[in-house]
Amino acid sequence: MARIGIVLLGLAGIVSAQQNPAASAARQWRQAHERAIVAEFEELLAIPNLARDQPDIRKNAAVVQAMFEKRGVKTRLLEVPGAPPVVFGQIETPGATRTLMFYAHYDGQPLDPKEWASPPWQPVVRNRALDAGGDVVALPSSGAIDPEWRIYARSASDDKAPLAAMATALDAIHAAHVPLRSNIKFIFEGEEEAGSPHLAEILRKYQDLLGSDVWLICDGPVHQSRRQQIVFGARGVTEIALTVYGPAHELHSGHYGNWAPNPAMMLARLLASMKDDDGRITIEHFYDGIEPLSETEKRAVAEAPDVDRDLMRELALGRTEGGGKKLVELINLPSLNVRGMASARVGAQASNVVPSTATATIDIRLVKGISVQSALDRVKAHIRAQGYYIGDKDPDAATRMAHPKVIKVITDPGGYNASRTSMDLPISQLVLKTAESARGPIVKLPTMGGSVPLYMIDEILHAPTISTPIANHDNNQHSYNENLRIQNLWDGIELMAALLAM
Amino acid sequence: MARIGIVLLGLAGIVSAQQNPAASAARQWRQAHERAIVAEFEELLAIPNLARDQPDIRKNAAVVQAMFEKRGVKTRLLEVPGAPPVVFGQIETPGATRTLMFYAHYDGQPLDPKEWASPPWQPVVRNRALDAGGDVVALPSSGAIDPEWRIYARSASDDKAPLAAMATALDAIHAAHVPLRSNIKFIFEGEEEAGSPHLAEILRKYQDLLGSDVWLICDGPVHQSRRQQIVFGARGVTEIALTVYGPAHELHSGHYGNWAPNPAMMLARLLASMKDDDGRITIEHFYDGIEPLSETEKRAVAEAPDVDRDLMRELALGRTEGGGKKLVELINLPSLNVRGMASARVGAQASNVVPSTATATIDIRLVKGISVQSALDRVKAHIRAQGYYIGDKDPDAATRMAHPKVIKVITDPGGYNASRTSMDLPISQLVLKTAESARGPIVKLPTMGGSVPLYMIDEILHAPTISTPIANHDNNQHSYNENLRIQNLWDGIELMAALLAM
Repeated sequence: MARIGIVLLGLAGIVSAQQNPAASAARQWRQAHERAIVAEFEELLAIPNLARDQPDIRKNAAVVQAMFEKRGVKTRLLEVPGAPPVVFGQIETPGATRTLMFYAHYDGQPLDPKEWASPPWQPVVRNRALDAGGDVVALPSSGAIDPEWRIYARSASDDKAPLAAMATALDAIHAAHVPLRSNIKFIFEGEEEAGSPHLAEILRKYQDLLGSDVWLICDGPVHQSRRQQIVFGARGVTEIALTVYGPAHELHSGHYGNWAPNPAMMLARLLASMKDDDGRITIEHFYDGIEPLSETEKRAVAEAPDVDRDLMRELALGRTEGGGKKLVELINLPSLNVRGMASARVGAQASNVVPSTATATIDIRLVKGISVQSALDRVKAHIRAQGYYIGDKDPDAATRMAHPKVIKVITDPGGYNASRTSMDLPISQLVLKTAESARGPIVKLPTMGGSVPLYMIDEILHAPTISTPIANHDNNQHSYNENLRIQNLWDGIELMAALLAM
Repeated sequence: MARIGIVLLGLAGIVSAQQNPAASAARQWRQAHERAIVAEFEELLAIPNLARDQPDIRKNAAVVQAMFEKRGVKTRLLEVPGAPPVVFGQIETPGATRTLMFYAHYDGQPLDPKEWASPPWQPVVRNRALDAGGDVVALPSSGAIDPEWRIYARSASDDKAPLAAMATALDAIHAAHVPLRSNIKFIFEGEEEAGSPHLAEILRKYQDLLGSDVWLICDGPVHQSRRQQIVFGARGVTEIALTVYGPAHELHSGHYGNWAPNPAMMLARLLASMKDDDGRITIEHFYDGIEPLSETEKRAVAEAPDVDRDLMRELALGRTEGGGKKLVELINLPSLNVRGMASARVGAQASNVVPSTATATIDIRLVKGISVQSALDRVKAHIRAQGYYIGDKDPDAATRMAHPKVIKVITDPGGYNASRTSMDLPISQLVLKTAESARGPIVKLPTMGGSVPLYMIDEILHAPTISTPIANHDNNQHSYNENLRIQNLWDGIELMAALLAM
């Protein structure tokens, strides 16, 4: 429904690809090899890819490495103890004075298989989105694949799609003898969804290998209008797990129900104290120090298409947070989001108890000017101001008895700060022009709402970062039933070809 | 630790049993048959007993029926469509002018077996409470069983213990030829933990069979001091399940994190609006109409032992709700308790999403003067006052889009009102005197904190109800690892013998 208007806008990109020779070559190659491209992609998606699951994650690295070796890329694994390997690749172009680094990651978000309509690592194609009634279908034996079909699997979008797109773009470039103008480097991470806990260490260790003029971050979705977007920053992220303690064990709610403190209610009250009804964070100083947008950045935000009404329809929302501000404005602010909550049992297993504990897990998105540490400090100060004693492990009986309110706060060692590259840099302008020649009018954004560990590239390698995403926005990324719309894969191949040949 | 002081108080009861001939006969019989009593009890506990699980629940009924037939009780099953049978039994005493009805229930609370230290329907004996480090032990082949040992199984306390106590008491009465003075009736329900949805129908259908001068409700725990308590009422109960809706499906928390409303945060805010930090319910009119306690009732509350400090130690609590009021006072007020809460995932399966829904399940305890309907109406009015549209099923997209806040409210068809019998009735005085002669000084309470469906006995059969519980208070009733302290079974046998012979 909402998608009809959106798809028409997408045609602009399809038409304009002809203006860029590499993108044009990519389209011809793709049209002749659709089934083989999907088959290779599905093989990659079939390998379970949680960062914490060894040896599966190493198997992913090996397959990705082989994919790029096959395309003439010299590869190696960059290793530090305790981390999945980074797959590094290189194409040296004689006479080139510029080096482009392409970043993607091959690990995926944690999941609960029970929530998936089909097993997360057994890719299937559906003839439309699952929530629009999509059925599993077989690819046609000949002719074009319907580009509105979707591939369902963990990391179909986030973030194996760019790997498939880059590999196919290289095939097209080789087949059509499109000349490269830059040195090309690839860096494919294996624990981005775990918060990139070792990336800084790897960047430092392999600093000499990793010099470049720009990092192109191939991650995240295109604009909700289905237009290509180029994004110059990302919010930082950090996570907090909160556990509030009630009685030492569950109690009968009748016999103790308004005497023993209820940790679920305590947690509800604590969370409620953090935001007002309009979604504004009410933690003291939470918004202090935000680095303001430049004039160019403000203009880009103002020019971005307004898709809020369409999105509200698509998501069946009767309102949004933020006091009437558009989504594209709001992502320039820090956020605090309850990503999960649990206490005792609900549904058929519920019973009349006062729970013993209640847990919530929160993610905080950061913008330039607010560091992980300052955000965590502000949240902790707020929790203390609500009367809590904060510990970092399950409290013993003495601790529980010594304080009226006790909470365990576990912070995320892998959190990282926000980053933002100026849109006015020559390399920024070149990327924009190239993308436009391949994909038509571009949505330019100072930051994406999501997070990729860009800040450390700036801090350690002093290279600017620019995000060149390809996935559809409605991809269920980070949730169950993740998927990639096939047109987005096709468009992504053309974008990658244009950028590789830039 | 806290239990040491408590156990000493319990000795008062043990000593005084000698004053009541039936209780004294029960003690002698029990001392000679401890292993057989426990063995028969464990057989009963080994039958899974969720009200909704047919045919297991009928198997319980059949075994209970056989237990009492064996003791000379004439039994039959009282049936209405769709309900577990009520086991009814009768002993006619020639010349008796009084009829005593003994109530218990053979079904147990729903559970999640994963939470149990040992399977819920495979009874084991432990040499102390599990949370005090109790190990599974075998009964000694001869000599007395340590009365501080505990039997672990679903319904060990709630509410199969009184069935075992009554059956054993009958054995002792028969063996010692203790004369009965009253007609005796038994009524054992099979869906009390499901809210007794068919009990009223059964009472109406079998009204002619069920006449009596008093119902003795054998359910619930004794006082936390381990002294026998006799309770003259019970709070009513009703349950509400709340589901708050966010986006139609989970969203990436970075891309949509402070734009799409978060249902977990909405639910937290809604719950937080229902109670203040001290546990007082802030729903408008929630406390209106409470029937005040009589002078006798106030005196009984004032005389009840204060075990709050001991309980706080036992439960590792640093504070209690209720502005300094004692537990025994607070249960004379209605309560609102969050019994479970869930949204998306926590722990290792958590991911950075805006959840799509958030659910809480609440139980409300009622006192005389506040009906189920008025409590539910007040809660719903409060939810509407927070800006919610209330439905009773999952809303469609149009409904979600038409309202800024949408909630599903499922109320409990089996909820029931509170009940309270006057302590000044002659039958009340007789029960108190009899219990005292068997068990020493009695704790007298106008109401228990928990709920049993007493009001319908009053409304349909016009019989007063008095609760004569036997389980230990620290029995994990309604939670995992439910247990019965063996001394409580021994004491319960003596109490039941005294009441049967009253």
